[in-house]
This record gives sequence, structure tokens and C-alpha cells, in this order.
Amino acid sequence: MLKKNIRLVKNDTIIALATPPGTGAIAIIRLSGNDSIKISNSLFNSLNGKQLIIQDTHTINLGYIVDGNTVLDKVLVSIFKAPRSYTGENIVEISCHGSVYIQQKIMDLFTRNKCRIADPGEFTLRAFLNGKMDLSQAESVADLISSNSEASHKIAIDHMRGGFSNDIRELREKLLNFASLIELELDFSEEDVEFANMREFEKLVLKIIDTLKNLIDSFSLGNVLKEGIPISIVGEPNTGKSTLLNSILNEDKAIVSDIAGTTRDSIEDETVINGINFRFIDTAGIRDTDDKIESIGIKKTFENIQKSKIVLFVLDSSQINSNNIDLKLNQLKDIIDKYPNKHLLILINKIDLKNPSELLDRLSDFDTISISAKERLNINMVKDKLSSYIKLGQINNSSSVVTNSRHYSILNNALNEIQNVYEGLQNGVSTDLLAVDVRQALYYFGELTGEITNDELLGNIFSKFCIGK
Amino acid sequence: MLKKNIRLVKNDTIIALATPPGTGAIAIIRLSGNDSIKISNSLFNSLNGKQLIIQDTHTINLGYIVDGNTVLDKVLVSIFKAPRSYTGENIVEISCHGSVYIQQKIMDLFTRNKCRIADPGEFTLRAFLNGKMDLSQAESVADLISSNSEASHKIAIDHMRGGFSNDIRELREKLLNFASLIELELDFSEEDVEFANMREFEKLVLKIIDTLKNLIDSFSLGNVLKEGIPISIVGEPNTGKSTLLNSILNEDKAIVSDIAGTTRDSIEDETVINGINFRFIDTAGIRDTDDKIESIGIKKTFENIQKSKIVLFVLDSSQINSNNIDLKLNQLKDIIDKYPNKHLLILINKIDLKNPSELLDRLSDFDTISISAKERLNINMVKDKLSSYIKLGQINNSSSVVTNSRHYSILNNALNEIQNVYEGLQNGVSTDLLAVDVRQALYYFGELTGEITNDELLGNIFSKFCIGK
Repeated sequence: MLKKNIRLVKNDTIIALATPPGTGAIAIIRLSGNDSIKISNSLFNSLNGKQLIIQDTHTINLGYIVDGNTVLDKVLVSIFKAPRSYTGENIVEISCHGSVYIQQKIMDLFTRNKCRIADPGEFTLRAFLNGKMDLSQAESVADLISSNSEASHKIAIDHMRGGFSNDIRELREKLLNFASLIELELDFSEEDVEFANMREFEKLVLKIIDTLKNLIDSFSLGNVLKEGIPISIVGEPNTGKSTLLNSILNEDKAIVSDIAGTTRDSIEDETVINGINFRFIDTAGIRDTDDKIESIGIKKTFENIQKSKIVLFVLDSSQINSNNIDLKLNQLKDIIDKYPNKHLLILINKIDLKNPSELLDRLSDFDTISISAKERLNINMVKDKLSSYIKLGQINNSSSVVTNSRHYSILNNALNEIQNVYEGLQNGVSTDLLAVDVRQALYYFGELTGEITNDELLGNIFSKFCIGK
Repeated sequence: MLKKNIRLVKNDTIIALATPPGTGAIAIIRLSGNDSIKISNSLFNSLNGKQLIIQDTHTINLGYIVDGNTVLDKVLVSIFKAPRSYTGENIVEISCHGSVYIQQKIMDLFTRNKCRIADPGEFTLRAFLNGKMDLSQAESVADLISSNSEASHKIAIDHMRGGFSNDIRELREKLLNFASLIELELDFSEEDVEFANMREFEKLVLKIIDTLKNLIDSFSLGNVLKEGIPISIVGEPNTGKSTLLNSILNEDKAIVSDIAGTTRDSIEDETVINGINFRFIDTAGIRDTDDKIESIGIKKTFENIQKSKIVLFVLDSSQINSNNIDLKLNQLKDIIDKYPNKHLLILINKIDLKNPSELLDRLSDFDTISISAKERLNINMVKDKLSSYIKLGQINNSSSVVTNSRHYSILNNALNEIQNVYEGLQNGVSTDLLAVDVRQALYYFGELTGEITNDELLGNIFSKFCIGK
């Protein structure tokens, strides 16, 4: 289905609270639609006869919102005229006093005057449908709002500004160009002419394959950056895992809630270290139960390691001696053999009780840090080590990081088709067969940027937005 | 202390999150101070070289907030130039994406660039000190933000627009005029001239006394409207008090949380009926304990009645018979004798179990409604009756409603002084003695509107504001 055929959007005027719910100094109520300025004007009184309908775009106007003779609030009304607005339609933003009662009264008034409460994401949906942004940019708006670390924020900002969809759009243009030439050849197939330069075409196909592979590879990083880098903490009971976790989490929590007045839901086992979001997976289980992890072979522990990107292996230096050190070394080697792609960091805990130098010698083949979780010794070294495994610098080149599983799936489909084209070229298959695969690849590219879309897809994407965006 | 001597405010630039804390579509960060536009300009990049410092007042400007080479967010920056702003200083409002992370990053960036986090109410304090509003108007801003019913909202809006402080200011001008004449007489006292027309002066004094008395009288209504009209529910155990309370509360709670996305803390025993906030005092005690209220004389019940404006007296129609009806009637008469100024409404409950007609005959001297709390019969009649006791129409003339206990206390002091003046006039006391009382009355008027103030008072008032206002 092509975009011009769907027109999900009616031309009615939508309204929503755009600021977080609750009481604050001010709240913003946002309207979008052809009539938004006209409707606002009819419910606005500046006391000096000012008319909103004749104000310039991007101006702010002081006055009162009135319901008949009743003054609801003294407000500032911002005017954005189509097409110079977020949605591309006329937009009005009413900045009112942040009382829930007033917010409710103003919303009530406008919905009684030809406005409709907006669906989640409907402002951004209109922005997409009016060509103000492509689909992957629209999707990044929701990512931006939910970003909670430097890395996830960086990627979302980049996507919002175009990100990899610019690359994809450029490659799609070129591919489309070749596609036209190939189709032309089909029309003249009996005359055996060749419009497309097949060498150039092959070059393009290889470039597309390379780009797609890089994007697909970036997903495993992009996705964990968005969800948090999973870390498992492994170790016998009473080695200090719980104290370690608290040491890592607590300090950062204090920083997170630094802004006066902001509250956060407690994020039990998540923390941001040097701009990267880390997530301690299933550590509650490790902490709360007393199941013996005498043998590393316990299923649960291996499952945790399997799900993680980094393994913290905690040893109690005061409990390690010549009798059990070899057992430990074997356990560590087991992990490395089984999971060669995980980062393994060994923490020698309780160095306040026993000097770990002997142990350090035996562990010299591994990444090792000596700590005291209880005395908070070297915890910052652990944090720096953790973030060094995920190089934030790489994310600066973030146009190549895919975080969205919809994009990931489409990119895989596109790669599949374009590889078929490449094989076809190698094997000299006929132009009409090539054309089928090219068309299919183009279709996937279009789905990514939103040139090709359908109601259900848009519904899925935008229903995940918050109200007012 | 006179205003010009205190200058609580430094000329630095303050910054605060103005929207409710948490995640939303957008958030507003507000700056005020001479340098606010200059500082914002240095951290703003429009991509086309637009400079905020040369933009007109009341304009909105699209661009990016940048920290060095890092883009923090795509934002709209609103410019308000002194003196045409809320505070009377240059104001900048940054409308950013509503992620807590982004809000925090932008606040961090600005505080590293010569901005200071604003104290609670500091924007409004600056507005007051810069003469944008008088003190009672400033105080009404906080009331407006916390308003939660039609009545409390109406009064706050009216105060914000001037309210009774306009009347007071006018009376103060006139009194000041007479005071000058009286002081002049003192200078010429040996010559026995009379500059002030004492008949006119007496008229003014009487008018001031009348105005002050009306304002003082309005406080008992104004205060309960702000805090909620207190209602006590009285009745023996198992008469259905708890069911009645739930019937009244639940329905309205559902209405309160009508706007999608708004959440409220549960207001256990408060509800808004026909625009008026009601508060059921200490009903938990009545509901939860099983103390026998066989004799109405129980101390706790009388305390509740004492604190309330309305008494709901609940009878179980199925338990009343010829043996105990007289006892009940005596209890009711007791209440009326003891508290002649309370509204007493008798609810005959459980009419689904027993026809109340006989009982109704005996209670014909009282306000009575037959209900079934369980079956929700006639609950709306109860609500209408409750709100009829507090006539909202009277509040429309709300310039005469005092809600603030600081105002109440000052008005009483002023009345005291001006009554001294009146008595002095009646008794022909000397002009110099009159002058002392007049001066003292003028002082109190000045305290009300903020012409006379001091640091501690301002600190008390504005520290109760929320951050960002």
C-alpha cells in the first residue's frame, strides 16, 4: 500500500496534555489541526482585543482562556502556522498554570469546542504523514523520550536527525534507478539491448550488501545499549556479591535523582556507568536464594551467563587457599571455553581481610581487580573496566547503530533479497528474474523509511508513543 | 522595612524545570535573569546561524541545544524580553523532549554556564520585587496551582487578577491622603488650623471598617473552600455510615481521574461535589472503631461535630421503633442546641429494608432525606443538598473572599487599629493620637499588598511555592 492511499489522519483538530501528568509550575496543552488557531481564538481573550488568527507564526500571546464569562486561566498561547510546525499543520500550545484541575478544565473546554483527545503518538503520526519526517525518524522520537543514558540518547538524537535512514534512502534511489533500467530492458527484451551497466550495478549491489551487513551487526550492540548491557554476577554464597551490587548501584542512584523535584521509579538492578546503561540480570535470584553454587555447573548460573554480555566472577580472597584454587581456575576456564565471546572480569573481594597477591599471581591470565565491596575499595576501577568493554567512542559513529527490532528484521529481509540479486548476477540469471529480487529489496527499503507502509504497521508503531507526542 | 531597601534578589540567572517532574512528550526548562538570553544563545545552534540575542520578544525559535560538539536535544526556545515577561526580567523557556535524562543534561549544561538552580517560588518572588504583581497576587499563584475545585479555582483566579487587594489599595490611598493632612495639622498645631475635613474622614473610616469586616467574615468560608468543607458523619455502628461514605466518594473519584494519563494520589476522604471541595473529617475513626455511640455524648463525636460545618446524622430505619425514637430525637435536639450554626442533615438509611414514612413524620422539623446507601438510592439528593448549603453563587462575588490566613491575621490587626481611630474620632481625642493609629493601620495595609515587607516574610511566603514558579 502506498502512503498516499492510506490517509489515516482526518483533518480534525486534536488536543493533548504534552507535559508529564501531575502538578507543576506550568503545563502545556497542545493542539494540532487546520482549525486549531481558529478554535483557540474563540476561547481566548487578551483583554485588548488581540486576535490569535492574525498573529504571525512562532509568536507567543498573553491572555486568558475563557469559558463564556468564566476565566479558566491566564495563559501564554504559542502559535505555529502550517507548514512550519512539528506536525506540518497549524499548532497551538497553551502554557497554563500547572494545576491538574486547570489542565482538566481547559481540556474539557476544548473538547466541547470541536477538538478531539489525541491518540498516543498522533502528533508524530501526523508529522510523518505530512512528510515532516520519515518513519525511522518518527520512531526515534519515542526512543529519545525514553532515553536514559548517554549512549541511548546519542543514538536516538542521531536517528532523529536522519541517522542511517539517509544512507538507506540514498542507496534506494540508486537501486531504483537501476531497477528502472532493468525494467526497460525487459520491455525491449526481444531486441537484446542492454541499458544498465552491469558492472556498475554489481558495484552498487556489493555496497548495499556491505552497508546492510554493518547495520545488522550493529543491532546486537544497539539493542543492548537501549535495553542495558546485561551483566551476570557469579560466585559462591558469602563471597560478597550482594554487597558488590549495592556498592555499584547505590552511588549512581544518588546521582540519578540529583535534580530537585524529580522522582524516579526505583530501578532495582539498573545503573548508568560512564554514559552506558548496565543491567544486572536475574541477580535478585543470586542474591536472595541460598542455593549452593559449589559447582559452577548449576543450570541457573549458566543461563545467566548465557544471557549476559559481561560476567563478573567474584572470589572471596579469605576463603581461597592451595586446596581449592585449582578448582576455581578450572571453573573459570570452563566459562571461557563455553562462552568465548563474553567479557569475563574476576573480582577478588575482601582484600581488607587478606592480601590477594598470591591469588593475583595464579590469575594473571585473566582480567582481575582486587576489591573490598564492603569498604568500597576499587569499586570505581570495576566501573571503569565495565564501561571500557563497551566503547562509547564507537557509538559516536552512531549512524550505523540499529536499535529497533523492526528495522533489524527489515534489514535482514532486504539483505536476503539483495544477496539473491548478487548471486543472480554471478550466475548470469536472466534480467526478469533479477528484477523480481530488486523490486522486493526496494520494497523492504521503503518499509524502513516509510515510503511504503500500511495502517496496521503505523498503528503498531505509534500506539507505543505517549499521549501528547 | 521598605521594599527598595531589601533587594533579596541578585541579578544572576536562575533556572528550573517548570513542568511536572517525570517523563512526558515535552518538558519546559525556564530561565530568568539579565543574561538568560545571552547564555541560551551561547548553547543554542539553529544550524542556519540564527542568533537568539537579536530575536524579538515573544518569539519561538527552533534549534539545537549543544554542549560543545554534542547535540543534547532539538528544542523550541521562547524569548521574553524585559520588562514584558512574568518576572520582569529577560526570560527564556526551552521546550525540550520530555525525557528525564534530557531534562537533567540540559539543566546540568546551563548550571555549568553561569546559571543557578532557582529556589522554590523565586520566579514569582522576582515578579513581585520587580513590581509585576503585588504580594497578595503573588500568593494567589501558589493557590491557583494547588486549586482542585471550581470554588478554590475561582477565588485564586480572582486574587491573581487583583481581587480584594485592589479595594485595599484604593482605601489605603485615601487613608494615606488623610494621614498627610493630619500630619500637616500636627506641624501647625500651635496655630490650631484644620486641614482635614473630619466628617469626610469619619466617612472613610466607617467605609474601611465595613470593608474589613466583610473580608474578615469571608475568611471562614474562604478557608474551608480552600481546605474543603468539613463534614462529620454521626450515627450508631451498622447504620451504614461507611457504605454511605463510599457511595459519595467512589463515583466522584472516577470522574476526577477522567483525563487519560493524569494520576492523582488517592484522596481518601475528600471529594468535589458541584464544584465545591468537601472533606469528611476523622470519619476513619468513626468507621474503623467499634466504639458505641449509644449516647451521643461521646467526646470524640462531639469533637468531630465541633470541627465540621455540616453534620450528617445517619439513622437505620430498620432499627428505629417506638421504644428508641424519642431518644434519637433528644440526641438531635441536643446537637442543634449545642451547635446552632451547623447544618444538620438527617439521613434515614436502609429504606430498601423498611418504609421510612412513619419516621419521616416524626422528623418533619429537620432536613431529612431517605436513602439506601447500599442500593445507591437518593445519593445524588444528598450531594445536591450538601452543595446547596454552600452557595457557589455567592463566591462569584469572590473579590470579598479571603482564603489566606496571613491576610486574615493582617486584616484583623488593621481593623483593630482603624476601630481605635473611629473611637478616637467619637471621643474627640487629639490629632496626634489619631495619627499614631492611622499610621499603624497604613502599615498593615502595606503588609497585605507588599508595599511594606521584610525578608523573613517573603522567605515564608515563597518557600511554599513549587520549584519553577
